[in-house]
Amino acid sequence: MTQTLRALIVNGANTNLYGVDPSGVYGSKTLADIEAGCRAVAKTVGLELEFRQSNYEGQLIDWIHAARQTEDGIIINAGSLTYTSIGLLDALSAFAKPVIEVHMTNIYKREPFRHHSFISKAATGIIAGLGPNGYEFAVMAMSRLLKGEKN
Amino acid sequence: MTQTLRALIVNGANTNLYGVDPSGVYGSKTLADIEAGCRAVAKTVGLELEFRQSNYEGQLIDWIHAARQTEDGIIINAGSLTYTSIGLLDALSAFAKPVIEVHMTNIYKREPFRHHSFISKAATGIIAGLGPNGYEFAVMAMSRLLKGEKN
Amino acid sequence: MTQTLRALIVNGANTNLYGVDPSGVYGSKTLADIEAGCRAVAKTVGLELEFRQSNYEGQLIDWIHAARQTEDGIIINAGSLTYTSIGLLDALSAFAKPVIEVHMTNIYKREPFRHHSFISKAATGIIAGLGPNGYEFAVMAMSRLLKGEKN
Amino acid sequence: MTQTLRALIVNGANTNLYGVDPSGVYGSKTLADIEAGCRAVAKTVGLELEFRQSNYEGQLIDWIHAARQTEDGIIINAGSLTYTSIGLLDALSAFAKPVIEVHMTNIYKREPFRHHSFISKAATGIIAGLGPNGYEFAVMAMSRLLKGEKN
Amino acid sequence: MTQTLRALIVNGANTNLYGVDPSGVYGSKTLADIEAGCRAVAKTVGLELEFRQSNYEGQLIDWIHAARQTEDGIIINAGSLTYTSIGLLDALSAFAKPVIEVHMTNIYKREPFRHHSFISKAATGIIAGLGPNGYEFAVMAMSRLLKGEKN
Amino acid sequence: MTQTLRALIVNGANTNLYGVDPSGVYGSKTLADIEAGCRAVAKTVGLELEFRQSNYEGQLIDWIHAARQTEDGIIINAGSLTYTSIGLLDALSAFAKPVIEVHMTNIYKREPFRHHSFISKAATGIIAGLGPNGYEFAVMAMSRLLKGEKN
Amino acid sequence: MTQTLRALIVNGANTNLYGVDPSGVYGSKTLADIEAGCRAVAKTVGLELEFRQSNYEGQLIDWIHAARQTEDGIIINAGSLTYTSIGLLDALSAFAKPVIEVHMTNIYKREPFRHHSFISKAATGIIAGLGPNGYEFAVMAMSRLLKGEKN
Amino acid sequence: MTQTLRALIVNGANTNLYGVDPSGVYGSKTLADIEAGCRAVAKTVGLELEFRQSNYEGQLIDWIHAARQTEDGIIINAGSLTYTSIGLLDALSAFAKPVIEVHMTNIYKREPFRHHSFISKAATGIIAGLGPNGYEFAVMAMSRLLKGEKN
Amino acid sequence: MTQTLRALIVNGANTNLYGVDPSGVYGSKTLADIEAGCRAVAKTVGLELEFRQSNYEGQLIDWIHAARQTEDGIIINAGSLTYTSIGLLDALSAFAKPVIEVHMTNIYKREPFRHHSFISKAATGIIAGLGPNGYEFAVMAMSRLLKGEKN
Amino acid sequence: MTQTLRALIVNGANTNLYGVDPSGVYGSKTLADIEAGCRAVAKTVGLELEFRQSNYEGQLIDWIHAARQTEDGIIINAGSLTYTSIGLLDALSAFAKPVIEVHMTNIYKREPFRHHSFISKAATGIIAGLGPNGYEFAVMAMSRLLKGEKN
Amino acid sequence: MTQTLRALIVNGANTNLYGVDPSGVYGSKTLADIEAGCRAVAKTVGLELEFRQSNYEGQLIDWIHAARQTEDGIIINAGSLTYTSIGLLDALSAFAKPVIEVHMTNIYKREPFRHHSFISKAATGIIAGLGPNGYEFAVMAMSRLLKGEKN
Amino acid sequence: MTQTLRALIVNGANTNLYGVDPSGVYGSKTLADIEAGCRAVAKTVGLELEFRQSNYEGQLIDWIHAARQTEDGIIINAGSLTYTSIGLLDALSAFAKPVIEVHMTNIYKREPFRHHSFISKAATGIIAGLGPNGYEFAVMAMSRLLKGEKN
Repeated sequence: MTQTLRALIVNGANTNLYGVDPSGVYGSKTLADIEAGCRAVAKTVGLELEFRQSNYEGQLIDWIHAARQTEDGIIINAGSLTYTSIGLLDALSAFAKPVIEVHMTNIYKREPFRHHSFISKAATGIIAGLGPNGYEFAVMAMSRLLKGEKN
Repeated sequence: MTQTLRALIVNGANTNLYGVDPSGVYGSKTLADIEAGCRAVAKTVGLELEFRQSNYEGQLIDWIHAARQTEDGIIINAGSLTYTSIGLLDALSAFAKPVIEVHMTNIYKREPFRHHSFISKAATGIIAGLGPNGYEFAVMAMSRLLKGEKN
Repeated sequence: MTQTLRALIVNGANTNLYGVDPSGVYGSKTLADIEAGCRAVAKTVGLELEFRQSNYEGQLIDWIHAARQTEDGIIINAGSLTYTSIGLLDALSAFAKPVIEVHMTNIYKREPFRHHSFISKAATGIIAGLGPNGYEFAVMAMSRLLKGEKN
Repeated sequence: MTQTLRALIVNGANTNLYGVDPSGVYGSKTLADIEAGCRAVAKTVGLELEFRQSNYEGQLIDWIHAARQTEDGIIINAGSLTYTSIGLLDALSAFAKPVIEVHMTNIYKREPFRHHSFISKAATGIIAGLGPNGYEFAVMAMSRLLKGEKN
Repeated sequence: MTQTLRALIVNGANTNLYGVDPSGVYGSKTLADIEAGCRAVAKTVGLELEFRQSNYEGQLIDWIHAARQTEDGIIINAGSLTYTSIGLLDALSAFAKPVIEVHMTNIYKREPFRHHSFISKAATGIIAGLGPNGYEFAVMAMSRLLKGEKN
Repeated sequence: MTQTLRALIVNGANTNLYGVDPSGVYGSKTLADIEAGCRAVAKTVGLELEFRQSNYEGQLIDWIHAARQTEDGIIINAGSLTYTSIGLLDALSAFAKPVIEVHMTNIYKREPFRHHSFISKAATGIIAGLGPNGYEFAVMAMSRLLKGEKN
Repeated sequence: MTQTLRALIVNGANTNLYGVDPSGVYGSKTLADIEAGCRAVAKTVGLELEFRQSNYEGQLIDWIHAARQTEDGIIINAGSLTYTSIGLLDALSAFAKPVIEVHMTNIYKREPFRHHSFISKAATGIIAGLGPNGYEFAVMAMSRLLKGEKN
Repeated sequence: MTQTLRALIVNGANTNLYGVDPSGVYGSKTLADIEAGCRAVAKTVGLELEFRQSNYEGQLIDWIHAARQTEDGIIINAGSLTYTSIGLLDALSAFAKPVIEVHMTNIYKREPFRHHSFISKAATGIIAGLGPNGYEFAVMAMSRLLKGEKN
Repeated sequence: MTQTLRALIVNGANTNLYGVDPSGVYGSKTLADIEAGCRAVAKTVGLELEFRQSNYEGQLIDWIHAARQTEDGIIINAGSLTYTSIGLLDALSAFAKPVIEVHMTNIYKREPFRHHSFISKAATGIIAGLGPNGYEFAVMAMSRLLKGEKN
Repeated sequence: MTQTLRALIVNGANTNLYGVDPSGVYGSKTLADIEAGCRAVAKTVGLELEFRQSNYEGQLIDWIHAARQTEDGIIINAGSLTYTSIGLLDALSAFAKPVIEVHMTNIYKREPFRHHSFISKAATGIIAGLGPNGYEFAVMAMSRLLKGEKN
Repeated sequence: MTQTLRALIVNGANTNLYGVDPSGVYGSKTLADIEAGCRAVAKTVGLELEFRQSNYEGQLIDWIHAARQTEDGIIINAGSLTYTSIGLLDALSAFAKPVIEVHMTNIYKREPFRHHSFISKAATGIIAGLGPNGYEFAVMAMSRLLKGEKN
Repeated sequence: MTQTLRALIVNGANTNLYGVDPSGVYGSKTLADIEAGCRAVAKTVGLELEFRQSNYEGQLIDWIHAARQTEDGIIINAGSLTYTSIGLLDALSAFAKPVIEVHMTNIYKREPFRHHSFISKAATGIIAGLGPNGYEFAVMAMSRLLKGEKN
């Protein structure tokens, strides 16, 4: 297929505080820095990216719904919604194409209420604990998944 | 440092069935294919790789111990030993350098007894569900971790 | 400081039904009436107000995030989101200035599932059961907190 | 009605130690300071105040009973009796006019045995965590409740 | 014995609200009405009555103490203090003559915290749920107890 | 210090029955006899005493509060209030000087509900089961504590 | 009776370490110091003392048995045997004269396993938390108990 | 065998108080009376008796040890040590000949802490609740056991 | 009284297997042998015996009830019913004369579920572990109990 | 099919001790005896056998992996690894042909930690408690399974 | 230091039966044999030994107390007292030098009530199950601990 | 017997990290140092040693099996496998000669999951908490056990 492959990167609640949140848990890179990194990788792998952030579960759901028509894959870091949003799980489950879940931190080493992700149940792959690099690997991974380079 | 950075990739019990296991759970690429993919990436990022597989917990522990002297990081897919080996956890805990855990499948979507990994307690980052690509991203991630490119 | 002090009043899910909800639980004043009352008080105490309502948890989080740069305090009646939103709790926790929680009704006399507020964990003070007046007292209280008149 | 509206402010066990209790939990203002603050506000809103303190549950009950004839509303900070007095709950329940409960501190953030108030079950409104200002807002709130300015 | 037999009827916290409490739980008869009913019965059975009420646990204890010298029996409705006062229990225990506990309502059918009476541990007999009539039966019962007509 | 040391002895609910309670549990000495004994001892050790009794928890709290200014130590037999009064515990906790708890009887040999004392949590020492003498030893002990003669 | 009254003071397991135990929990006075203090008091009150210590439960029982013939009262600090010795309880129970239990510390404020004393079940009185002074008060108390000065 | 059979009767802690213990729980016969009764029976059945008492667990253990050489059987009433002494259990277990446990009272009807006997684990037979007669039956039973008359 | 004293010996469930049970736990004597032994002893001590066995709890209860009129004492080995029959306990409790419980074996050394006997709560004395001799001692003991030879 | 059917019999940890283990739990036949028995049966049913033993979980996994190419069925007695090896479970699960689990003893009657077998989750059939015969029946059963004679 | 190092070896209840206990659990060597063995070793390592045994807990405590002045270390086999003596634990805790616990048998293979040792909480090292040799190794170990030869 | 006695010392998972593990829990001596110490002792006692380490459970089992023919005893420190290896327990149980378990640390004072050793169930003796010296004592102990010097 000569059509360019496209992926949506959705960032959920409070992810827009990366780099500015005073707790420093997520490091010094902002979401804009992360987007730039993703775009650089996407260019390399020939993937067209849509990079969005919203603190609205509804908006995230709408974007995921819409992506059913326009996108070939979704990379998602649902932020604070990771642990409780069944709505996102259902929306992603209805997206019949690859989904990659990304977490800046290794959530399996943090507070117990962060050890369970509803997103994981709808994800093809998961990348956690690698900080902003995790996003870039997700872009690469998506490209390969879409090009059938998985195996 | 002008010295080449090195990483050990250790593969545990049953990982040698990748590509040949009839269940198809792990895809069609063999471990040799995976190794080739890792080596290609390693060449790109200038990382020297040691790639090994064993179905023996003892062998895996030995390799991790030896890596204390020779390697800068460890990428591990402990296979069936992931869920029960305190020995691997202790060996990895005594390795004072980066560790990346890889799983071919998204273990959080499988049987309940696969939802807990002893390896994760000693891991810097985790990549799961991306099949052979996950290994390649782990190589890239290790390279960046070792070069301080995390954020 | 000669600069005017500013406070954001955020109203959450279903608060826009005040005055029109046929149950009458919340009285006859509309949110516009409440806003007018707040503005009258704010004028008196010399506080500049931003008064907003949304049924979107995401919009509320956005406003709280934005308030980090522009506001000196936040008065919040999260409405139906009071009892479950970790997202609001996290957003408010990242806001390093006074927060006053307001409830139109005495939530401690209602159904058991309304006896616990996630908002309270990030609040300086709580005013409940005083209807629209509670908002006005919150404006006065915020003014005093900001001017150091607490005790 | 041309008759002046009246409110009783009752303060319970150990509240007379405000400002002098060595723990400093309740700040530096004495109950007399608080009364002065209340009276200043009451003057403004045209409310006649009766301000009392007792460490006797019986005295508090008597005052509440008597207030049925003489007062239009009750503001109560039951102090140490908040958590255990069924007598005060029953007396307040028999007072068919507005009751506002005040707490100097945000009791929902303190020891578990202070998270339950018997007083709340008989209160119209609750103000907590705003220190002495909470009393003043309670006076204002009472004035408005009595003047039908609630909604 | 030619000396007239005497009984003290003590009414505890909030019982002075009978007939005037707007909840109507206790009916329309005031404590004065109840006293009148008791006196009518007392006259019939030749018992001299002392009828008192206080909201102070301390006052009730004092009266019970004093009754040791002057009364032949005590009828007590401790009101809100019924459920928690060990002080009344001890005072009644030190009264070496008949004690009858009265409750207007059937406390065993009300809220759980009203199902346990400390008073009962020091009572000869208990009458509950018969409203003002219960008081009158208590007077009759006391008369019989004092005249040795118990069995 | 040439100023005379002073101690307050507070006696709680039902302690005024000592010597007259027919159960004989507390012996034949009245509280007046006990006071006389305490005063005789106090004279010997040069301690000025204030000796009070009340069946009102509120009165006891008042006295403890007042003692903050005037007394160097408190000896307390809370009587029936020993087992349940958080108010007394809080008042004693706010008294920053020695407290000795006295019980006429050995409460550890009585009913289970008398085996726990809230007072003990705020007491320096405890004397139980020695009847009126316990008071006198408490006076001596207080004198020694105040004069630094503990060990 | 012109015969001198006598009391046995028995000290149990590990009490001989007072003043020399490196933990310092029991202060700096040795058991000899404590004995001297007791003897000084005994002289004053005209009591003849027998002061003994043993780490043998059997010896302690024998002394208690023998005391049935020779002593008028027993003061006991059973030390480490306090919490477990049924033998001492039974021996003391068979001693039909006054028994006073002494503890250097307020055992009700220490580890839970020290909150229960078998000795208390056979004691007339208990003195705790007053250090070596507690022994002296026990001597005085015993003198009074024996002289019928209890009440 | 022409050699006279011998039995040791050991009496433990507090058993020396039988007949003199004022509680009367154990009746009026002294241990000397019991010994006399046992000797009378022993004479009848041709058994030579050794009858001893000690309040020292250590002494009892020593006697049981020594009996290994000199006695054919042991009758034991461990008294207060019955319920807790593993030492006596072990000493009796090392005695490879018949052991009969005797209790004056039916310990299974007394306080809960007397319902378990460590001695029973090393006993051939148990006789309880028959008072001094129990000892005599134990002597008869021992004689029969030693002469093989059990069944 | 010149009337012959009478005792009922009741044997419960499975006791009829004595001497024939292949496990040999209960020895080689049959219940008939045991009865003969008992009768021999009874003759000696002048006691008239009724000796019965039943595997029906109901029958045993009937016999015990009837014994209230005809017997002076009961000796009971309830067999398998020992551990669970409250019916026998109640029947024996209603028998206001001596009861002796007999067990062939030392039940306290067997399975845990045999360590508790309901019969013991209604027994004067207990004899266990002495085999058929135990029955004979029970007959002697009953004779002495009935003749007042207990102590 | 004219090709001879083949089965691998794998024996796990400690099975090599059969017949030589001094406990005798597994009888007197050695693994060689068992192998001979199996071969005799196999000859009868026309099955070609491969018979192996190892104490290494890793080795067993390797053999099972290799059997994927060469064998038509696997009979396995994992020995001590039965209870804990997920590795063997996974290896057997990847073997897409009949698996029969054999145990010499009835593991369900032994220690609790032997009541759960991970092997069973991948087994077609299980034979336990029949000793060496169980192996022979397994060979017969395997032959029938492979020849489609299952039912 | 030129001064000879000294150690006390204390042996508790029933240890004097070693070599003579018919159960044979503890072997054939007597405690005297064990002492001789210890002395021989002590001579070799230049340690001066004090070797004692008692069945009295009190005696053992006395010896441990005295050792505070005279000994450099304690080797203890508390025998039957191991499992229950808080007195020994407390005495050893007050000994601020090395303590080695010895057991003739492997207590972890015996009855459950022997699996917990109070002594272990105060021990540096533990030697169990090696019989008399365990004592000799304890002497050697003590010598090394005292000479700082641990590692 | 003129043949030299032989013992195998097996060291399990992660014990090869002694002296090099950065945590320092096990001190500074390496396993080679420990071996040297053991050999020096073995030479002295005339024991031929085989000293091995493996991180393979299977290897450890093989060595234990093989030792059945060649060794007279086994000394084992199973390292990380201590707490979970049923395979080692079974292998050691089948070794009908002395087994000594060694632990560098006093495992009974560490984390709860180290308080249970499967190895102990098959061990003759246990030495814990004495560091590398523990190994040397184990060698001596083994020599004595083998030479029948145990008792």
